This record gives sequence, structure tokens and C-alpha cells, in this order.
Amino acid sequence: MIIIMKDNASAKEIEAVEKTLEDFGFQTHPIYGEKKTVIGAIGDKRQLSMNQILLMSGVENVVPIMKPYKLASKELQKEQSVIDVGRGVKVGGSKLAVFAGPCAIESQEQFTTIARQVKDAGANILRGGAFKPRTSPYSFQGLESEGLEIMYNSGKECDMPICTEVVDTRDVELVAKYSDILQIGARNMQNFKLLREVGKCGKPILLKRGLACTMEEWLMSAEYIMSEGNENVILCERGIRTYETATRNTFDISAIPVSKELSHLPIIADPSHATGTYKYVPSVAKGAVAAGADGLMIEVHNCPEKAASDGPQSLKPEKFAALMKELDVIAKAVGKTLL
Amino acid sequence: MIIIMKDNASAKEIEAVEKTLEDFGFQTHPIYGEKKTVIGAIGDKRQLSMNQILLMSGVENVVPIMKPYKLASKELQKEQSVIDVGRGVKVGGSKLAVFAGPCAIESQEQFTTIARQVKDAGANILRGGAFKPRTSPYSFQGLESEGLEIMYNSGKECDMPICTEVVDTRDVELVAKYSDILQIGARNMQNFKLLREVGKCGKPILLKRGLACTMEEWLMSAEYIMSEGNENVILCERGIRTYETATRNTFDISAIPVSKELSHLPIIADPSHATGTYKYVPSVAKGAVAAGADGLMIEVHNCPEKAASDGPQSLKPEKFAALMKELDVIAKAVGKTLL
Amino acid sequence: MIIIMKDNASAKEIEAVEKTLEDFGFQTHPIYGEKKTVIGAIGDKRQLSMNQILLMSGVENVVPIMKPYKLASKELQKEQSVIDVGRGVKVGGSKLAVFAGPCAIESQEQFTTIARQVKDAGANILRGGAFKPRTSPYSFQGLESEGLEIMYNSGKECDMPICTEVVDTRDVELVAKYSDILQIGARNMQNFKLLREVGKCGKPILLKRGLACTMEEWLMSAEYIMSEGNENVILCERGIRTYETATRNTFDISAIPVSKELSHLPIIADPSHATGTYKYVPSVAKGAVAAGADGLMIEVHNCPEKAASDGPQSLKPEKFAALMKELDVIAKAVGKTLL
Amino acid sequence: MIIIMKDNASAKEIEAVEKTLEDFGFQTHPIYGEKKTVIGAIGDKRQLSMNQILLMSGVENVVPIMKPYKLASKELQKEQSVIDVGRGVKVGGSKLAVFAGPCAIESQEQFTTIARQVKDAGANILRGGAFKPRTSPYSFQGLESEGLEIMYNSGKECDMPICTEVVDTRDVELVAKYSDILQIGARNMQNFKLLREVGKCGKPILLKRGLACTMEEWLMSAEYIMSEGNENVILCERGIRTYETATRNTFDISAIPVSKELSHLPIIADPSHATGTYKYVPSVAKGAVAAGADGLMIEVHNCPEKAASDGPQSLKPEKFAALMKELDVIAKAVGKTLL
Repeated sequence: MIIIMKDNASAKEIEAVEKTLEDFGFQTHPIYGEKKTVIGAIGDKRQLSMNQILLMSGVENVVPIMKPYKLASKELQKEQSVIDVGRGVKVGGSKLAVFAGPCAIESQEQFTTIARQVKDAGANILRGGAFKPRTSPYSFQGLESEGLEIMYNSGKECDMPICTEVVDTRDVELVAKYSDILQIGARNMQNFKLLREVGKCGKPILLKRGLACTMEEWLMSAEYIMSEGNENVILCERGIRTYETATRNTFDISAIPVSKELSHLPIIADPSHATGTYKYVPSVAKGAVAAGADGLMIEVHNCPEKAASDGPQSLKPEKFAALMKELDVIAKAVGKTLL
Repeated sequence: MIIIMKDNASAKEIEAVEKTLEDFGFQTHPIYGEKKTVIGAIGDKRQLSMNQILLMSGVENVVPIMKPYKLASKELQKEQSVIDVGRGVKVGGSKLAVFAGPCAIESQEQFTTIARQVKDAGANILRGGAFKPRTSPYSFQGLESEGLEIMYNSGKECDMPICTEVVDTRDVELVAKYSDILQIGARNMQNFKLLREVGKCGKPILLKRGLACTMEEWLMSAEYIMSEGNENVILCERGIRTYETATRNTFDISAIPVSKELSHLPIIADPSHATGTYKYVPSVAKGAVAAGADGLMIEVHNCPEKAASDGPQSLKPEKFAALMKELDVIAKAVGKTLL
Repeated sequence: MIIIMKDNASAKEIEAVEKTLEDFGFQTHPIYGEKKTVIGAIGDKRQLSMNQILLMSGVENVVPIMKPYKLASKELQKEQSVIDVGRGVKVGGSKLAVFAGPCAIESQEQFTTIARQVKDAGANILRGGAFKPRTSPYSFQGLESEGLEIMYNSGKECDMPICTEVVDTRDVELVAKYSDILQIGARNMQNFKLLREVGKCGKPILLKRGLACTMEEWLMSAEYIMSEGNENVILCERGIRTYETATRNTFDISAIPVSKELSHLPIIADPSHATGTYKYVPSVAKGAVAAGADGLMIEVHNCPEKAASDGPQSLKPEKFAALMKELDVIAKAVGKTLL
Repeated sequence: MIIIMKDNASAKEIEAVEKTLEDFGFQTHPIYGEKKTVIGAIGDKRQLSMNQILLMSGVENVVPIMKPYKLASKELQKEQSVIDVGRGVKVGGSKLAVFAGPCAIESQEQFTTIARQVKDAGANILRGGAFKPRTSPYSFQGLESEGLEIMYNSGKECDMPICTEVVDTRDVELVAKYSDILQIGARNMQNFKLLREVGKCGKPILLKRGLACTMEEWLMSAEYIMSEGNENVILCERGIRTYETATRNTFDISAIPVSKELSHLPIIADPSHATGTYKYVPSVAKGAVAAGADGLMIEVHNCPEKAASDGPQSLKPEKFAALMKELDVIAKAVGKTLL
């Protein structure tokens, strides 16, 4: 780290900072300028807080040199991770992963019907919510364990891996039993206990970006999961909160190249939650594929106007099928395949 | 709700919308303009999603009339709630509540020392973290259950109610056993399972505002707790995430008058987390009291440069004592007392 | 507009609101609910402020029905505008417009060299800054009128229309004399005097989105220009300000489909200013084309490390040429052409 | 500045960076770590762009040490500036400055009436808009030069300095002739030509913070004015744009202590534009005074429901007078006076 001293820092203050750094195993290299002294401190002590130094007398600022995450970083692993999610499907390779399905699981019939439709259209992973995090306590909260069973049955029948959200540390074991990929939703991206728990569950994790979380915080949350021994983390950009109200959130397309620069983990895009409106889903989905996403998560419902949740952002199966064909052309244009 | 039809909506489309609304028990009142038809729908069906209507053919927009929360609203209760948190301390009355203490509980000695110092300075509630939500898995995560015992002992010795954060549904019972007020942190404001669980615990809840949550979402989270039968919810504004980097977050002072307009729940201010820098704490603390906050939560540490967490935003006990005297003068200027 | 009265609004208050609306030529349609009265007011009075009504006794809220812009809206013109910018180049048709060139004009030689390179690579419009809005008064502010002449010469020599920014009402005439397209930069998107002035200049206008401006405000700024008689407005999304610091701004890809939904004006994307880093430009450029943008604005410099301004986001000519080939494949995948 | 080299930077790359820095007059101090090399570069070259270095081969990041502004900084002047705005009124001293008046000047009678009322209540500076920056071209744009005359007359009659906005470089001379303080509005905070022009006008400048501008950008805009020789700059925090919609903008109360830390310029608060709602103005005004603001700007209108602009945020004269008495008590609580 680099310690920038105040203009008027005394020799004694500079010395005290150097001593503290050395006590923590850093090598120090002071640079004396006309106005300011700057101290370079060499050592890889990620667990040491910079705060101690920041609060010392005469210190103006402390600048980190190392990234705070290791396992998720490109420093550790240069080549992109490819994650096997079961039933022969991989996320992160040249064939794009398409997670599709309704927001909420409503019944066995509804779910299997949609599952078949999205599979026919070319989706390779089935998504659906059994435990729904809803803003209002008066909204439908999901079928919970019954939903998991429905999902499991449909996945088996259609031979598709399934992905569903877990929202409570107490449910991790149960959800891991029924599903192939566990989703951590945006609102739980910094629910660190839940991250640790899914880090132990042995199944791949889809980690959605928090509503207002930075790329660095997102990778730190991946690090939580990975530090428990689970390296199978798939990032999912689903829009961030900004001042703009024309869409529900603002899809951060640059998260795709930035994550590729910083991390070896695959990243998929969720244009449904990002825009909140089915009309804007195709445009953002195409953009994400062209920008280099490893896959998509798209909400599809056979009757959006009767959906228990998130109807306005769901595509009808026929629109989804048409979109898949368009996406395939774009995937090929960037050297990948989708169908 | 108000349904705004598209310019070119057909008579058949308008009729279909009316029929659906009536099927759900609404009375409909169409208004035919030159360009547009608008349908007023009367009825108090908060649990009905507007989405169904929004997706119908010919519909441009749907505008809600009723607020989505009830129990937290002023519609239900006009007078401000005053919450008894034990040991004779109340939050929401004319005497301001001051929660003070270190970010993390480090040892019995440390905690009791600081507890005595903040009590001497006039604080009436002791705060400290046993379970710490940390951005990095490599940072100190708190003393957990040992920390709860330390806290309990200090609270008893100093005769102060204690407030500590709970981050996992599995810990609610344990934390409720040891502490007088359970804190829901910013990162868990929309951890709905945890909200439901603390809604059943019988102890007052301090509900911090999420990093990027609106006033409405915040009150909806209070509604989650209240809908489980726990009406003792204290709001805590702790800064929101904006583009500005000069402070860690941006303290939203208008959250104070806005919450007073919308809700009967008391609101306190946390200038320590909002600013992230001890230097800015006094100014924001004074502003919050003048703006009408029912109390403050301030981090105090006897040795910030050695704090296990959040040192840079902690006040030293002597600075805290000086600030309390200044705050008391401001409290009096707005018709309240602090010391 | 829709007027939502407070729960306890009196008959007298309701009557007064109705009377005021009628005085302004609205037809009123009150709807009496159990708890609330709502008044529908029919009439197209865009210039009337809703404020008057909002402040009347008993009024809780006022909801607009009509969009505040007309000329820029799809209501007025359903088919997309195609704008002729000179030298046979059109913006908004099936052939994409590519604006390329250095951030700042530095010399005749530099500019013509880059102009030839970007033309060879397939760009059809030349961009460059003569008047530079710089955050610091101590930074290079552009060659001003000398820069305009250089630009004019290069445009003539390479037979390319040129686009440059105007930052002062006093310079509009001069800039319009030398350039084919006048750019209004992000920082001037709500410089309404400048908007009016360029509305009178007779040349097409490239209107960049303000750093923190909504889609509606952006279209209102287009409306300013159009209301002076200049219908040739090209929108340019260049990233918005959010909390994320990994990129300079956050490119709002959904601005592309949203603008297509609301307006007939063409929209291009500027990935250079949006990301601030050349490494992320190709990914965002491809995403924008796939999402349906009508063109791109990309900074190209033959020696970015010596650029007078914005070097880090500039592509080298050879990288730009390679990107153009990739973009052409994506353009074709969405039914357009680029080369 | 500090140059952080990439992990795998070669000796040749490091040498090249050092050479470039030395060519620009910097002294370089390389620090060789196990993984990384860091180069400290000593010298005060604010006008040198860090971009050149950032783009060199092997460079990971460049960290500035010096603040980019000089004249506005505390480095240059430690004691707070007190600005004489005429007629015996000073901004920045222990007596708070209160700018009050209507949003727009509507007529001589209206303006003088309100002027008298705010003066009676204790305001010491008269504000009002002659040139109005309005989001819609169809809204009232102000009385322009007629408004200036009205304002001048009222100021003379009531013996109050007047403050009004200038929005066009062509009007600076005219506005400077009629008014005592020229206001640069939020939308023009980075209209650098206008900043330079008012820097030459010889009158004090009220510089509002841009809608989405950082503290640093704000001080850089002050620097623009000051670098033209005009040191009489008053900062005005008026709320920033965030995701929250309960208020029009989010008043950033921490801008007060942060500006005091970084700059010697006085800062006032505008709760009217920040909140957009008269109901929230008193609370935020009190908060700002308690937090250390040097004054306030408050919109007052004798008939808000008929105001040509911004009625909903205007206080009626009697409410303003009541608020002034409350503010005076708070001012005294922080060692200042208001009445």
C-alpha cells in the first residue's frame, strides 16, 4: 500500500507510521518530496485493514495496491472457468447457456408446459422461483418446498438442469437436494452467512449482482463462496439501481468486459429483471450476447397477464423462440453458438 | 388505481379491462377524452398486482392510488409511536435516544470501558457488533456468541439496554435472548425471511435503511416485521449509495421529514456509517437532530486506530462527550432534550 | 391529468379543484371512492403546470397522462427519422453511421492522418473537438477557431461530413459555418439557451445525453431544438453517472430500445466516453449495435499516449479497423450494414 | 503521483516510465516489491495529464497525490473567506446569509411585496429569477431584462443586495449591471465558458452544485471562476440526483463539512430545490444550519398556487417568518446569529 502523508507531517509522525508498518511485516520505502512525504509499503497482507494506518497522526490517505479478492481474480487463474452444471450443460464455454422459465413456479402443469416450450426454443437450463423475495409481505411468496418438487419433476422430465433461488440459510440443504444450480438473488448478494452456507453445498452457484453493488463488492461476494471451497460461481448482471425510471433498473453492459478483465468466472445477463418490461428484453439480450456474455437468463411465461409475479417482464413462449433465433445469429457473429 | 389506455385503444380493449377490474371487485369509472380513455378503479385491494392490468391489450400505464403499506403508515395511526426498549429508555419521545458504542465487540474489558464512557457522556443505549457483516471473507467477522455474552454483561453492569445486529435467521432466538433491541443491517433490509423471523421475536427492532432502498421499500420492510405482530420498529437512516465518493455514503437528511410525513415510526440517524469519517460525524449528527431525528447511533471507540472494524469513523470518548453537549443545545432548540 | 385527493378532502375542496380545472379549459370527471376521491381532467394543456393544482387544499397528488414532449414523440411521427448530414451520409437508415476521430484536434497533420485512417477503416463521419469542455481550467481547452479550420480542411480532403462540439451561444454561427453536424455535449444538454441557438442554425444536431439526465429530460432537450424549427436531431447515449467506478460512466444500453419506443429520432452510442477505457470500447460498441443503435461515435487516435485529451479511451487506428470488421458482422446479424 | 506497475511489468517498461516522468521534471523513486513495482514521482505538475503515463506499457494504475484545485483549496488559504456582497451584507461570517424570494420574477408589484415580506422576516439578500432554465420549451422562461429591472428596483427600495441567475455568456454584462450576486445554476455548473465569463464580471458569484457533480468537480468549477481573478465565490448545495423519488433531489448535508475540510469558500444550502416540496423545507433548513452552513437560500411566494414556476416548493411569507425564528435559535446553538 501507499501512504500519503499530510503536507505538514512531522518527522516523528512519519517515523511512527513506518514503525507500525514494519511491525506488521511490511518493508517501507519513504519518498521525501518538497511538500509531501509518501511511504511505499511492500507486502501482501490482504487481511490487514488500512484503517489503522489511515488513523495515525499525519496521515492524509492510504492507497491499496493489491486487489482485495484472490480466488475470483485473474491473478490466480488466467483462463476462463467453465462450469459443469449437470445433464451435459456447461456455463462459460463457446456454447451460450440460456436459463429460461417463469419468475415463480405456480403448478406442475404450468411449469412443465413452459419447460417444454423453452427447451423446444433452445434454452438449456430451467429457471423458476420456489422461494420468492417480494417487496411486499402481502404478495405471493412462492410455493416453497412444493415448488422445489415441481421443479425437480419438470427438470427430470425435460432433461434440463434446474436453477432456483435460496433465500434462507436454513433452506440451503433442501434447495441443494432438489436443484442443480442455487441462485443467490440481488437482495442477498451481501448476505454473507448465506454466501458461506452455499459455499459448502457442493452445487454451482449463480450469484446475481446486488442492486447497488460495485464490481469489486460483487467479486468479494464470489470470494466468500469460493473461500468455502466452492469454485463454481456464475456471475449474473441484472441491472443496477440508478436515477433513471424508464426501466426498472439500468443494465450495466460494461459489467461484461470489466468482469472478464478482472475475473475468470463466467458471466451471464438477465435482461428481464434489468429492464422490467418485456418490450426491452430482446434488445438488451442481443446487446449482452454481442458484448461477450456467457449466457442469458430470461423470464418466459405462457400467460404473463396471469403470472403470480413479474408478468410485465416475461416473454411469451413464441416471442422467446423468435428471440432465440435472432440471438443465435448474433452469437455466431461473436464466435459462439446458442442453438 | 387509475388505468391509462393507449391513444388508439379500441372499445373492445377498454371493455375487457373494465371487465377484469370488475371481476376483482373494483368499481370502474371510465373517462373518455378526445385522445385517451382513462379508467378509474375504486377498491382497496392492496394484494392485487397491477401487473395483470398493465399487460392487457391497449393499456399504456397503471397508476396506484393507495400506499402499499398499511401498518407502518400514518393512515392507520396518526400519532408518533414511542417504543419502550427496556431499562426505562424510550425511543420516539421528546428525549432523544443515543445509541453509542464500538463497531465490533472485541473483549469484555474493551466493551465495558467504552460502555461506561458513553454512559457518562449521556448515551442511553449501548451498541456493538457480535455478528459482523464484512465485505471481505478475510476480515474479522465478530466474536459471535461470545460477543453477545460480553455485551449482555456490560449492559447489565452499566444498566443500559443493548442493541446488536442479527444477520442469520438461525441466530434470531439467541440474539433476542441476550439483547434488548435487534438490529437489521442495511445489507439485510430486504432479507425478507430475516424480517419475518425478527417479527416474531418479541423485542424491538432497529431497521437500517438499505444502501439503495427507497423510502417506500424501507417502509415495506417495516411492514414485513409489523405484519408478524411486532409493532416496535425503529427506522435508522445510515446514508444511501450515490455517485459521490468524498463520503462513504450520502446521508439523506430528508428521510427524516419524509418518514414523519408517511409513517408513525420513530427514526434515528447514524452519521458514522453515513460519512465513514469521524471528522464529518459531528456536523451530520447536529444536522439530523435539528431536522427532527428521534435519536442517533454513533460509533465510539477508545482506540480507533486499533479497532477491529470501522476505526476511521469512530469518535474517541472525549470527542463524543464534547459532541453530546453541543447536541443537547441543538435538541433544546427544537423542543427536545438529550442529556 | 388525474388528481388524487386526500382521504379526508372535503366536498368544498373537491369543488374548488374542479372549478380551477374547468377555468383552464379542462373537462372534469370526479370518481368518488369509499376513502378517496379522484378527479380525471381531460384536455391537452401541456404548457399548464400541474403545480397549481398540486398546491390546492385537499390535493394529495397529480398524475400526468400526456407526455411533455410532442415534436420528438412517436405520437407525432410513427416512422423513424432519417437525417441527411451531407456528403451522401444519412443517420437513422439501415446503414450505420460511424463517427470517428480524435477527442481533440491537435494539428492539421494529426487530424488529416487520423481522418484518412478512420475513413479507410469504414467510418463515414469525422469527429474532433475544437472547443473542449474540460473539468480543469488548467487543462488544454482546444484550438478553437483554428481547430475548426483544420477540421474543415480534413473533411473536405477526405470527403467526410464533420461533427464538432459547440459550447457557447456566441460560437454557434461560426461552428455552423465550418461543420456539418453540431454536437451538444453532455454537460450542455440542459443549457437551454444553447439548445435554442442551435435550433436556429440549420445544421443537424448531435445531442448527447446529460450525465444524470432521464430519458424524458433528454427528449425535452431535443424538443427545445425542434421547437425552433430544426428537426434534425440525433440522440447520442454516452453513459450516465452511477455509483460504479470501474468505468468512467455506466453505458445505459436500454436507452436504445426506450428511445425507439418513445421517439422517432435516431440514436447512436458513444462507448469511448461511456467506459473511459479503450479496453472496454469494443465490447460496448458491439452490444450497442446488436441492441439496435443507429450508429456509433468512437474516439481514435494514432498516438493515444500523447493525446492532448482523453487518450486512455482512444483506440489506435489498427484496433479501430479490426473492430469495424467485427461490428459489420454484428450489424448484418441485426439486418443492417456498416461497411 | 504514484505509478503502480502491472505484476509482470518488465525492467524495460519500468525504465521507460521513469524516463518519461523525468523528462517532465519529476523525480522518480521506484520501489521494487515481490510482485509489483511502484514508482513514486515527486513534483507539482497539476497541468500534466496522468493519461500519458497511464497508457504506457506495463502500467496498471496512476494515483494522484495533489488535489487538482489550488485557489479554492485550504492549502492556499487556511482561514474561511468572508465575501462582501454589498449593502453591508457579508457571506461566510458568523451572521448567516439568508437569500429569499420567489423562484421567478413575475411583476414589480409581486416582487416588491415579497421582498418586503422576506426582509421583515429577517432575510438579508433578495433572490429571484429573470432568466429561467426550464426543462420544457413550453414553460414560462422568465421576464428576462424586464425582470432584471424589476429586481433592481425592489432591491433598491428594500435596501437589499440582489442575486439572480445568468444562463448565457451574452447576458453576463447585463446581469452584472443590475445585480449584486450572479448565480450559476446547477445545470450550468460545468458550462465552462460561462464560468470564465462570470470570472471576469467583478461581482460575487453564487455557484450551485451540479445535479450529479462531485465535490471535486464543484471545486474545480469554482477554480475556473477564481482563475479569472474573481475570488468571491459562494458555494450552494441544492441537492444531488439519486435513485430516491420521495424528494426531487437528495440534499447532501455532508457537503457542508466536506467543503469546510477542503476549501475556504463559504457554503450555503438551498432546501427548496433540494426537496421540491415546501413541507420538507423547514426540516432540511434547520439541519443545514446546525451542520454549519453559512446561509440559506429559500423560495418564498405570497401565492404559491399561482406561482409561474416552482410553486410546490415555495413557502408562504408567514411560514417563512416562523421558520426564521426557529432557525435563529438553532444558529445560536452553533455559535452564529441569523436575525
